[in-house]
Amino acid sequence: MISVDRTDLAFQLFDALPTASLAALPRFADYDRTAMEEVLDTAERIAMDHFLPHAAALDLDEPRFENGKVAMDPRVGQALAAYREAGFFGAGFDQEWGGAQMPETLRSAASFIFSMANVSTAAYPFLTVGAAHLIAAFGSDDQKERFLKPMIEGRFFGTMCLSEPQAGSSLSDITTKAEPDKDSYLLHGQKMWISGGDQEISENIIHLVLARLPDSPPGVKGISLFIVPKYLLRKDGKRGKRNGVELAGLNHKMGYRGTTNAALNLGEKTPCRGYLVGEANRGLTYMFHMMNEARIGVGLGAAALGAAGYRASLVYARDRPQGRHPGHKDASSAQVPIIEHADVRRLLLAQKAAVEGALALLLYTAFLVDATKAAPNAETRHETELLLDLLTPIAKSWPSEFCLEANKHAIQVLGGYGYTRDYPVERLYRDNRLNAIHEGTHGIQGLDLLGRKVMQDNGAGIKTLATRIMADVTQAHAFENLAAHAEDLAAHLGEAVATTGKLAGRAASAPESGLANATLYLDMMGHVVVAWMWLRQALTASRKLRTDGANTDFLEGKLAACRYFFAYELPKARTQRALLDSLDDTTLTMKPEWF
Amino acid sequence: MISVDRTDLAFQLFDALPTASLAALPRFADYDRTAMEEVLDTAERIAMDHFLPHAAALDLDEPRFENGKVAMDPRVGQALAAYREAGFFGAGFDQEWGGAQMPETLRSAASFIFSMANVSTAAYPFLTVGAAHLIAAFGSDDQKERFLKPMIEGRFFGTMCLSEPQAGSSLSDITTKAEPDKDSYLLHGQKMWISGGDQEISENIIHLVLARLPDSPPGVKGISLFIVPKYLLRKDGKRGKRNGVELAGLNHKMGYRGTTNAALNLGEKTPCRGYLVGEANRGLTYMFHMMNEARIGVGLGAAALGAAGYRASLVYARDRPQGRHPGHKDASSAQVPIIEHADVRRLLLAQKAAVEGALALLLYTAFLVDATKAAPNAETRHETELLLDLLTPIAKSWPSEFCLEANKHAIQVLGGYGYTRDYPVERLYRDNRLNAIHEGTHGIQGLDLLGRKVMQDNGAGIKTLATRIMADVTQAHAFENLAAHAEDLAAHLGEAVATTGKLAGRAASAPESGLANATLYLDMMGHVVVAWMWLRQALTASRKLRTDGANTDFLEGKLAACRYFFAYELPKARTQRALLDSLDDTTLTMKPEWF
Repeated sequence: MISVDRTDLAFQLFDALPTASLAALPRFADYDRTAMEEVLDTAERIAMDHFLPHAAALDLDEPRFENGKVAMDPRVGQALAAYREAGFFGAGFDQEWGGAQMPETLRSAASFIFSMANVSTAAYPFLTVGAAHLIAAFGSDDQKERFLKPMIEGRFFGTMCLSEPQAGSSLSDITTKAEPDKDSYLLHGQKMWISGGDQEISENIIHLVLARLPDSPPGVKGISLFIVPKYLLRKDGKRGKRNGVELAGLNHKMGYRGTTNAALNLGEKTPCRGYLVGEANRGLTYMFHMMNEARIGVGLGAAALGAAGYRASLVYARDRPQGRHPGHKDASSAQVPIIEHADVRRLLLAQKAAVEGALALLLYTAFLVDATKAAPNAETRHETELLLDLLTPIAKSWPSEFCLEANKHAIQVLGGYGYTRDYPVERLYRDNRLNAIHEGTHGIQGLDLLGRKVMQDNGAGIKTLATRIMADVTQAHAFENLAAHAEDLAAHLGEAVATTGKLAGRAASAPESGLANATLYLDMMGHVVVAWMWLRQALTASRKLRTDGANTDFLEGKLAACRYFFAYELPKARTQRALLDSLDDTTLTMKPEWF
Repeated sequence: MISVDRTDLAFQLFDALPTASLAALPRFADYDRTAMEEVLDTAERIAMDHFLPHAAALDLDEPRFENGKVAMDPRVGQALAAYREAGFFGAGFDQEWGGAQMPETLRSAASFIFSMANVSTAAYPFLTVGAAHLIAAFGSDDQKERFLKPMIEGRFFGTMCLSEPQAGSSLSDITTKAEPDKDSYLLHGQKMWISGGDQEISENIIHLVLARLPDSPPGVKGISLFIVPKYLLRKDGKRGKRNGVELAGLNHKMGYRGTTNAALNLGEKTPCRGYLVGEANRGLTYMFHMMNEARIGVGLGAAALGAAGYRASLVYARDRPQGRHPGHKDASSAQVPIIEHADVRRLLLAQKAAVEGALALLLYTAFLVDATKAAPNAETRHETELLLDLLTPIAKSWPSEFCLEANKHAIQVLGGYGYTRDYPVERLYRDNRLNAIHEGTHGIQGLDLLGRKVMQDNGAGIKTLATRIMADVTQAHAFENLAAHAEDLAAHLGEAVATTGKLAGRAASAPESGLANATLYLDMMGHVVVAWMWLRQALTASRKLRTDGANTDFLEGKLAACRYFFAYELPKARTQRALLDSLDDTTLTMKPEWF
């Protein structure tokens, strides 16, 4: 039931965004549109042939902790071998280190395809790439040679070891220690919630671990970053002795069940050696540099899960006969396919609006990553980076929240069949519930957006966002069918900027009050930004309808989904702003003992 | 982590509702307040001692289909034995047939407790009671003697067999046949999604089956209701031969995993004998008479799951230290319990508002059931019944939708721990996802409300609702802290009545257009009704704060949750009404091929 909508991917990549133009940059010279389509063909083939077939079985038969090791379905390793052979582990990395130097926009589209097919199996390379990027950005040449290269080759996998049992959202409270020993460090502590934290698929696992050096300052300024391999490397780079990072147990989750999630002990029984990355006490800064990428990746996974559910429920809605139209109750007439029912269409439109809106946002942010590389000067690059920073918490959170809602609707379309384990939609819903917690909870993203990102550089990010939205609004006014949407979006933007100013001002003088409803602010801004993404898609569709006779149904669908979003979803942002503007203090004045 | 909030139950039953006054009726003379509290004590003791301990294990080790039979955790049967011995199977039935003649309001409160502890195990008596009520209402004296009595004793369990593989929401399309044979009927067909459809716990299973007689008219007017026992009864009422209703397989679900959900074959291998209940061709009317009760029961289960998650996440939020207040970032200071964070309080308040608002509505509807029995005359009874009819789809759907949202928030409070299977909150979330589909989907409830209930008797139900809401609004104006809420609710009510008139008028002339957004209408009306429930609770709390020095924290919590609902939730109803009033046709004009 799950299939990739390549028409939509092509529309989003090549019509709504100028992805093909990236080939003009020397870095991306290998990637003309034909080459890009071939990458997507390869991704789709591997995803459908190797990732999708074991997705349901892996969910039922999750990895097990046996004799201190992880046992799992061998098809995970087989799928990742196909992924490795096609070169996807190194897709985004520099050719200098063995990478394929693929544009991030294209790499994101490929990741979307793999996650649609099997998000649990796709998580292993996702984590590996995140860890590898940290080494690429901050590691020494020797570290790159020994650790990064085999990760790019897909021989070593990677993890990000941030959380500890007592320190999840509050990273300033981590206590893992690193003591200098010879030319490296010995680590002691416990790490928790480590996705991909152990497995027997890859030759080695490279953990990127946050820990404290002796006498480091308390809080976030005393955290350093270490490379901790599962197996130490010999001088020749070959796998050597087992390092003292031990699997303490697996967490059993409601979703992403095929991705191991581990508690790890460092240096408990045998010494655990680590290598400092970059400078001491800068670990959290490094980690956050790469956290943007991880957060956008989580949003992409959430959108992919939403898309998988949407496609599955669409197939079902076209095939399943049930009931008749209101006012046509002749029981001897044939039943109609449920896609004929207004409420089923609403459930499908809601999914389409969420999923394709989220994908548009994620590809837009990925394009910003590429655009920083293409920036003609430092000023443009800085502006692009600020916009990317601003959009990151939204790109992580909006899909995690609203594509989960889409997955809920997919179950509803299937009725009783939807909640059985014979169909994929309940699994997708379970998988997606993790994404509002993974890599920084929804609440943390709200604080990041309102407490940090909108304040950066005197609100330069918001100004850039507003300028870009208004440019598209102006374009949309040229199309009769979009003029009302354009006006609507402009009004919402103006109000959202005013609310931002009010809350940011309040947060500066009274942080608890200003930030009390930061999560709702995040949702509100998300709706405005996704409305913009829909206006952009509708604008692109309207242009193509004028100039092009092809794909008319598809383009009309884009216009209808845009109408849906503006009629059913965007007005919610105004309701939220009224609450935000009121500086409501219900959550602050509520006393713990009143619950 | 799961415990019953008896303070809230007592407040809801005895302060917000005049439940204790029911003892003045001869029928309920045994139930003064002390007796009622004793019933709740017994329910709580059995629920905590026998239902809760196996809830998590039953979810992991769901019933299995082995050699044509169902195998399951023996603790389900043990728990239900304790339930039976305490007389809960017959709680609501007439003493004439061995019942305890308990008021429905009290019985609902007890059911809420059992469902909080273990919704899967509680489902077996829930289904039994529903089936027994059908026999009590429409069966012959002989059928009552042979089938109803042992159900009231808890020796025989019951099921409701409506759906078939090709007929779920569209019951007019069922095809199971019943052929006259001697003094009874032989049935042939397949039934699907039968909760409790088979098990080895009870002596016998009494299936209430919808089927068609030969030459019956097509559609809903040709459906009859049959008693189909798993084991035929001998003349002396003892269990006789196996009847030809066979377990074809179990459906494996995402939630309610401990409740078997079966596909049944009738008369496939051996004859399947059934007994007509009441008159031929009136089966669906009978079934719908009892469907109200089943739907309110589903809402009660949804509220109970929400409450269980709320209580669990509240315990966690009080205990878990993490992070510091905004503006107090000294990393050497101790972390605060997460209940100190505004966003965590929001997640808790959202749960409290949904769960206690839903419970208030469900107890209110249960009280209406009792009130029909207490009505001084036919006119009052009819008015009460119309209000009950009107509120039923809301009482089913609002908790199913918004207590699921509450369960989502409970996971969020626990962060990564929340999505592991070591804590109950992910299970509660999975369980609750079924309730928007069970016993008529969310969409079906919307059509029932807007297409049928609001039209009944020229809108008499809505008029009664408005009168009752305005009576409480008038009372609330006497309290300074509630005057703004009272005014707000009166305005929402006026607008909701206007929207109702507009949509009902449209539905009369153009059903597809008028009913296109019936589901949103349902959600909108639900928010107005639950706001009323919160005003009633706040009114009660304000009165008690004036007159009573006890439980001040609890009562302040009620006022805060009321403020939360009016500030964060109720405004959404206005946004929805704007859409409804616009008669938006996006879902109608969207063509299937555009998806």
